[in-house]
Amino acid sequence: MKSFLRFINRVKEVTAMFNRVAIVGLGLIGGSIGLALHHARAAQQVVGYDLGKGIGERARKLGAIDQSYRALEDAVRGSELVIIATPVGAIHALLQKLATCLTPDTIVTDVASTKVQVIKWAEEFLPDSVSFVGGHPMAGKELSGVEASDANLFRNCVYCLTPTAHSRLVAVNRVSALIDLLGAHVRFLEPAEHDRQVAGVSHLPFLASIALVNSVAGGSAWHDASLLAASGFRDVSRLAAGNPEMYRDICLTNSEAVAYWLDEYITTLHAMRESIAAHDKDLGEIFAKAQQLRLQWQMSQSIDSVAKI
Amino acid sequence: MKSFLRFINRVKEVTAMFNRVAIVGLGLIGGSIGLALHHARAAQQVVGYDLGKGIGERARKLGAIDQSYRALEDAVRGSELVIIATPVGAIHALLQKLATCLTPDTIVTDVASTKVQVIKWAEEFLPDSVSFVGGHPMAGKELSGVEASDANLFRNCVYCLTPTAHSRLVAVNRVSALIDLLGAHVRFLEPAEHDRQVAGVSHLPFLASIALVNSVAGGSAWHDASLLAASGFRDVSRLAAGNPEMYRDICLTNSEAVAYWLDEYITTLHAMRESIAAHDKDLGEIFAKAQQLRLQWQMSQSIDSVAKI
Repeated sequence: MKSFLRFINRVKEVTAMFNRVAIVGLGLIGGSIGLALHHARAAQQVVGYDLGKGIGERARKLGAIDQSYRALEDAVRGSELVIIATPVGAIHALLQKLATCLTPDTIVTDVASTKVQVIKWAEEFLPDSVSFVGGHPMAGKELSGVEASDANLFRNCVYCLTPTAHSRLVAVNRVSALIDLLGAHVRFLEPAEHDRQVAGVSHLPFLASIALVNSVAGGSAWHDASLLAASGFRDVSRLAAGNPEMYRDICLTNSEAVAYWLDEYITTLHAMRESIAAHDKDLGEIFAKAQQLRLQWQMSQSIDSVAKI
Repeated sequence: MKSFLRFINRVKEVTAMFNRVAIVGLGLIGGSIGLALHHARAAQQVVGYDLGKGIGERARKLGAIDQSYRALEDAVRGSELVIIATPVGAIHALLQKLATCLTPDTIVTDVASTKVQVIKWAEEFLPDSVSFVGGHPMAGKELSGVEASDANLFRNCVYCLTPTAHSRLVAVNRVSALIDLLGAHVRFLEPAEHDRQVAGVSHLPFLASIALVNSVAGGSAWHDASLLAASGFRDVSRLAAGNPEMYRDICLTNSEAVAYWLDEYITTLHAMRESIAAHDKDLGEIFAKAQQLRLQWQMSQSIDSVAKI
């Protein structure tokens, strides 16, 4: 029995393995995937490519990749799996370039926050011999760059996959097995459904944070008022310190869903403003509803251990 | 020389000291003031009163007060200083009751987040023999209740005082000296100016957080979307878990300034929504401005060590 289990595990190990994986874009996510692949012994070789000077070499020294290439075509040549971990704004040009240099039967996946637009580009540019599977890990931390990489970044996080009618089942299964190896939980979603959901829970929060900062910190009275800003301002404004180009590219590739949620948000704020101006005693109920919903979410997070509170 | 310095310090000590201080409302702030007063040996006796069953006794056991009273009038009788540390919604009735039982020459101060309305009530209800000095420490933490009290809660924080033309200088100076003893930095502000500033940096953030939760977590699609909510949602929504009655009372006592800032916020959000819907390439500049302002604030906080980032 023991030897049979060993045999089964060995089969699982072999079928889950890739000969060669190329990671394109070696920031926090790309670097963390590289570390996690090594940690899980999921690939014979992990190679990498990054436009930034010296980043490939740093990723190699950190153990995220085994070899760094200075040309994209050299990195992806012969790779069974190519993981695009660049900002979403770089993916359009990258897919055009990849179209000319991928080995047939390569599986391509990405980690971008918006999926409809990226999948449209992939279907437009990539040859039929290549399978594209859109992905989006719901993981991150405040620090960015390959130095912040962490083999456990994806452990217990939700990792969305958005296959379409054009996706090949074998490619979806292999990417899904890879995500299991990272320690994350696969969640399958329609691309448009994914984009609507993340617009609400991820893109609206950073826009709310940016708008707060630009509203209160932009004016002439800010110097004095800033002395009174404490932990409440700190928390709600934290996301405003994030990368502006990344935020811009997310909004440009998910504009419809983002505009929908901004309209919802403005409507909610306007109703609250009217209640406050009218000294409406029911205000407490509006706030109690938010408290209840937030505490429920917090509790669900603790129970599932799906994300860290 | 040494004995002269000792004499001066002794004089400072004696002039800064209170014989008897009463703290009304023994939550996080009231309890922390009690602990800090004991730590600084700033009063011969610190007594307390709280409506909640058993809270006074718990505050005594924690060392925040020396004696707990079950009747407000017994607590404040003979106290040189009365510190109102209740929620702002309780202050109207409390000042009416205090008016009938304060010893002449008592100094009264409070810690509420809004000042214009509280000062108006104080001037309306308190007898002329009593001095009121409005106060507001910019300190807090996620936990509430007397058990969360901390003698160092006010260390290096900004503590606003909002004297008016009716305030007696001697009373302002004594409350100011007390704040020094707590380790906080006194900041004098006109009451209306204070209310405008905190509406922007403190009240708008919690309303932005509440509106986010009620917008995205209120609908039927929330169950699915909540699985994708991660650290961005967590941070911006954190304040929504706060006390709804406290938020309501703040909004009701500072409605004009809060409505002003909500209008500013909605205008900023609406402009961003239009830029996003129009695929405006300048979006990056709007986001870069927010990033710069947020990082500048963060840096000023680290330099001044005025608040904890």
